[in-house]
Amino acid sequence: MNRRQFLQHSATLATAPLIGLSPLRSDRRAPLRVNGVRLNSWLTSFDAIGRTPTGINRVAYSPADLAGRRFTLDLFTQAGLAPRIDAAGNIYGRLNGSDASLKPILVGSHVDSVTDGGNYDGALGSFAAIEVARSLREQGVHLRHPLDVVVWQNEEGGTIGSKLAIGDLTEADLDKVARSARTIRDGIGLVGGDATHWRDAVKKPGDFNCYIELHIEQGGLLEKAGLQIGVVQGIVGLRWFEVTITGAANHAGTTPMDQRHDAMLAAARFTVGVNDAVTGEPGRQVATVGRLNVLPNTTNVIPAQVVLTIDLRDLDRATLVRFTDRFEELGREIGTATGTTFAFKRLVDSEPAMANSDVMNWIDDSAASLGLTRQRMPSGAGHDAQEIARIAPMGMIFVPSVGGISHSPREFTRADDVTHGADVLLNSVIAADRG
Amino acid sequence: MNRRQFLQHSATLATAPLIGLSPLRSDRRAPLRVNGVRLNSWLTSFDAIGRTPTGINRVAYSPADLAGRRFTLDLFTQAGLAPRIDAAGNIYGRLNGSDASLKPILVGSHVDSVTDGGNYDGALGSFAAIEVARSLREQGVHLRHPLDVVVWQNEEGGTIGSKLAIGDLTEADLDKVARSARTIRDGIGLVGGDATHWRDAVKKPGDFNCYIELHIEQGGLLEKAGLQIGVVQGIVGLRWFEVTITGAANHAGTTPMDQRHDAMLAAARFTVGVNDAVTGEPGRQVATVGRLNVLPNTTNVIPAQVVLTIDLRDLDRATLVRFTDRFEELGREIGTATGTTFAFKRLVDSEPAMANSDVMNWIDDSAASLGLTRQRMPSGAGHDAQEIARIAPMGMIFVPSVGGISHSPREFTRADDVTHGADVLLNSVIAADRG
Repeated sequence: MNRRQFLQHSATLATAPLIGLSPLRSDRRAPLRVNGVRLNSWLTSFDAIGRTPTGINRVAYSPADLAGRRFTLDLFTQAGLAPRIDAAGNIYGRLNGSDASLKPILVGSHVDSVTDGGNYDGALGSFAAIEVARSLREQGVHLRHPLDVVVWQNEEGGTIGSKLAIGDLTEADLDKVARSARTIRDGIGLVGGDATHWRDAVKKPGDFNCYIELHIEQGGLLEKAGLQIGVVQGIVGLRWFEVTITGAANHAGTTPMDQRHDAMLAAARFTVGVNDAVTGEPGRQVATVGRLNVLPNTTNVIPAQVVLTIDLRDLDRATLVRFTDRFEELGREIGTATGTTFAFKRLVDSEPAMANSDVMNWIDDSAASLGLTRQRMPSGAGHDAQEIARIAPMGMIFVPSVGGISHSPREFTRADDVTHGADVLLNSVIAADRG
Repeated sequence: MNRRQFLQHSATLATAPLIGLSPLRSDRRAPLRVNGVRLNSWLTSFDAIGRTPTGINRVAYSPADLAGRRFTLDLFTQAGLAPRIDAAGNIYGRLNGSDASLKPILVGSHVDSVTDGGNYDGALGSFAAIEVARSLREQGVHLRHPLDVVVWQNEEGGTIGSKLAIGDLTEADLDKVARSARTIRDGIGLVGGDATHWRDAVKKPGDFNCYIELHIEQGGLLEKAGLQIGVVQGIVGLRWFEVTITGAANHAGTTPMDQRHDAMLAAARFTVGVNDAVTGEPGRQVATVGRLNVLPNTTNVIPAQVVLTIDLRDLDRATLVRFTDRFEELGREIGTATGTTFAFKRLVDSEPAMANSDVMNWIDDSAASLGLTRQRMPSGAGHDAQEIARIAPMGMIFVPSVGGISHSPREFTRADDVTHGADVLLNSVIAADRG
């Protein structure tokens, strides 16, 4: 159902019989609502798990992550979802639909955190998905499609659970060490999966009707604009480059300025050049030099080598390609000018993942029916949704994060916004069910 | 004696009786020469002390430094110099002159090294000074002035021995920890001094006739110019700044470019600005950003803080002051433009130390009489001579270091250049003795 069809459909709701809506509800046009008090109370309780003086530490595969998963499994059970952990370590729970021939609608997120992170990133979307299923059950609303609630394992380590779910990791990847200093293989075992049979958990295109994920924005655009809901247009593509700039160490006092091969000066010019390039044309592209290490890093020695990283993101693949070329050209120019050499290594290269237009419309219209202000926007951060977009129509709902702060102990989303996001998720699921 | 007087004096040498020159020498105009083979053999033997796979490690107060000092004390003794260690831990040995009322001519350097350094920095000047005294004795040349040979302790830790010798350290300074992880106070004891009475070792202005130090260049100017001797005009003044640039950490993907407070971008602009400033006007001034540390230093986080250092040097104090002001102005400009703050801390502030014009002339003329090519030049590196310049007329002789390399296991000075430097030192001492 596209936006036009949905609106036409909505206009007829008062009179048309609606498959899957409870006969108890008299006003078919009024949107359903979740139990926001309950949902917020879960988040409050969850805050105690993995809370340390420096923030929430539920790093994947750590004891706190396992505790967080036990808490979450209880919520599944209380919601009547009978959770199961698949071979990849992801948690699924199903609310049956009336038509077993239909593919499930998938909703969820993750419950692991970064080091010294906050309580909302991932947990909000996971708990809201459980609450949506529980609200549907409690309010006697029967969907045609099965509703699958999922909690992906180890999102913060690189969307590992969702990558496993689409079969996008190799056996060698499983032996890589995750943030919690354990291999993914060991981690799968710890969270209750079965690493030797993880491929049994792989999903295929067409296995799901769609995937919808609620998440805090992790940026300040909604708050700055005074809006309540973000309708995600897609998740930006990401390229990480490691740039090694090699000059020659020399005495800072005795080497004339015109006889230097100063890797730090070259790195500085390059950093300025990268910034000038991305800000020099319109668009939402961003580039960041976030990591930079100098050798020998001594006050009185001209730097011999600098290794720095660039994080480049945009929703348009062509923009990523164009700036990649520009950065390499900059390296050649500055290398020649400073007597240094630039070597580029691609650390990460992820394609933009576009949201499905039907799913965006369902989210948009649900927010409208709830009277919530909203805008369409890209996600600058990565999410499990970017992986699942490869096998199912995907959409994401953003709610404001105060101050745009995330991955921080100060991460906070107001209770009203938590509830709004879950209400939009609930009504988007209903819209998806109507198709 | 100034240059003109010296030349007039030289012109009369064939006929005039010369005080202090050996009657055995028939040709008074021919310069004396040291035993270069012997001097080079000492350097070769010394290379075994503190040699490690990563370079020479005779860091002050380490066992290798103590071994190096024992080796050096033996050379004093073999030269008939009867070495003594003063309360500050510096080694002195005297060749008596014919007129006990005259102040001694002082020659010397140091024998400690940096971590992973080379064999010539310091050792050359120390051994050449001993060889000069031994040559004078062996060749029966009697000076009017006493000749004091000195080996300063812990030059590489911040010209500690020579600072002690001019009374320029406080008791609190003595409790600072040197590179070898020992305090200076402990170090003085280890090298045979007496820290409780170190002030007994302090010298006053007028205590020495002059101070002359031979050293490797620690830069590539002589080699590049194809010259044999550098006549040092002075030791540049040095200012070290630590600049703390504070922005705000934020998500590299979700924070629009125009909403950032990027400490790394500010640091890059500042590094470029510092370079542009010092290269934008004529002169030999140099500035280096050699150390730079980023927080949190993570690929996908906009840097919250950068701490970097600037090493600024010039022979003219007014230039140091002007660039200090310029750097602070740059910090304010870039801080405003990038939404960051700059805080400057002065880590080191040493005044330029000018060589004495008579001493420069003696060195210049000695090199000329030996047929050696030469130029006048500043020393971009610090030396004990900069301290002693505050109590005595000072001069330094530079010889080429292959590739301009120093403070490195690859530090190397050719045997011929070692001998040339010592020959110039010998004849400069004779010129100083003539006054």
